[in-house]
Amino acid sequence: MWRLRWQTLGLTAVSVGLALEILGFLVGWLRRQRRRRHRPPRREVLFFPSQVTCTEALLQAQRQGGPPGAAPAPAATGPEVRKSPGPAAGAAGSGAATTAPAAAAETAPSCLCPLPHGESSLSRLLQYVLSARSSLELCLFAFSNPQLGRAVHLLHQQGVRVRVVTDCDYMALNGSQIGRLRKAGIQVRHDQGAGYMHHKFAIVDKKMLITGSLNWTTQAIQNNRENVLIVEDEEYVRLFLEEFERIWEEFNPVNYTFFPQRK
Amino acid sequence: MWRLRWQTLGLTAVSVGLALEILGFLVGWLRRQRRRRHRPPRREVLFFPSQVTCTEALLQAQRQGGPPGAAPAPAATGPEVRKSPGPAAGAAGSGAATTAPAAAAETAPSCLCPLPHGESSLSRLLQYVLSARSSLELCLFAFSNPQLGRAVHLLHQQGVRVRVVTDCDYMALNGSQIGRLRKAGIQVRHDQGAGYMHHKFAIVDKKMLITGSLNWTTQAIQNNRENVLIVEDEEYVRLFLEEFERIWEEFNPVNYTFFPQRK
Repeated sequence: MWRLRWQTLGLTAVSVGLALEILGFLVGWLRRQRRRRHRPPRREVLFFPSQVTCTEALLQAQRQGGPPGAAPAPAATGPEVRKSPGPAAGAAGSGAATTAPAAAAETAPSCLCPLPHGESSLSRLLQYVLSARSSLELCLFAFSNPQLGRAVHLLHQQGVRVRVVTDCDYMALNGSQIGRLRKAGIQVRHDQGAGYMHHKFAIVDKKMLITGSLNWTTQAIQNNRENVLIVEDEEYVRLFLEEFERIWEEFNPVNYTFFPQRK
Repeated sequence: MWRLRWQTLGLTAVSVGLALEILGFLVGWLRRQRRRRHRPPRREVLFFPSQVTCTEALLQAQRQGGPPGAAPAPAATGPEVRKSPGPAAGAAGSGAATTAPAAAAETAPSCLCPLPHGESSLSRLLQYVLSARSSLELCLFAFSNPQLGRAVHLLHQQGVRVRVVTDCDYMALNGSQIGRLRKAGIQVRHDQGAGYMHHKFAIVDKKMLITGSLNWTTQAIQNNRENVLIVEDEEYVRLFLEEFERIWEEFNPVNYTFFPQRK
């Protein structure tokens, strides 16, 4: 009789514990959903050249983060467009873009290198890329920046589905990240045609579009006058995703020819 | 007595006529204002390569239009993003983008050349540029397309304030429109710095932003995979206009040096 009672009591305790666990999980999930639903869509413009800052902390946080998308996208900034202030007036075209230094501390915990650890246009671009949780489509004319290369590599290692479309002439240039990404097992397709694959856009989780004039090269990031728009907008994302899928199919290796037309 | 009456009658008739004229003008103006206020902001994405179409009709209409901005911007398409369908699957990268043929008739009245007279991504871009009424800021890495060059020239002739910022290395290339525009009296400024002025954006009447990956060259328009966003959005326009003014001041000829840094 006592034994039966203890058994019932034990079972009840376990059930209540489990129920509380599940309830806690559900409440947390609902809260996250609600927050996501009520978060204003991201809209930001980044101008380059970017100040040269250390981005180790961001990449390390992503590496240690475990699950994909551990690095949160930069804080949403309401319906207003946010902007990295342009280069400081001075040497033409070589100024550095920095954002509010208040946010700098977030990304400067571990690395002791002499570079500044504040935010920059590059660090914000990196954060947006690293915020991918399930998929990342890259449609890039040139891709040689090592920090962005490492970010994409990390996402792939953490289970994000990465697909890359690029230009055949520029993918073999010195310092290109394309070979490295291919070696890591990321799917890459390229053109064989007469024109350049000159797009410079990325789509994060089929929700966020990153597009502009910037090729993902260190030369462009640190020296050129460039712009990048970050837009969370269903219609824009849909149109660019359709363009990506069109190109992805057209550049399918089964369509490659042995004697392609020269550019 | 009769004479006085006739005079009064005449004066009254003239006054009534004038009042009716003014009333008609006012009603028309109010209607236009209302339509403008209620028109959804333009949002469109153009993908390239563009089909090669004849754009003579557009440029002729602008030339004959008299007052600046006679060419209306392409019809607004509601809050939805409009898109020129991408290149037809086929020879990689050399397909042609065309828009709804329904709109083709509008632009095919006069020219008898053998080119198709329908709409294309280029013709839509041209229409957006030609819709300028008061100002046009161009911030272009490379500008060699003759149709777009003629459009900008025409706008300048019709009193639109045109300002151009470009890259010093690319403005002297074969077929560049920069020299032609300078000769016509348009203000042009360029960099002297180590990096490229790699932006590819235009601002129409300080209200519409045209930006993307496309350099305004015939090679890019007809052969490359490119995108151009057309956005009527106060915040985006403000940010890009600020960037333009920053560059405009920095590239002021009084800041030029005799021995610029090489790229």
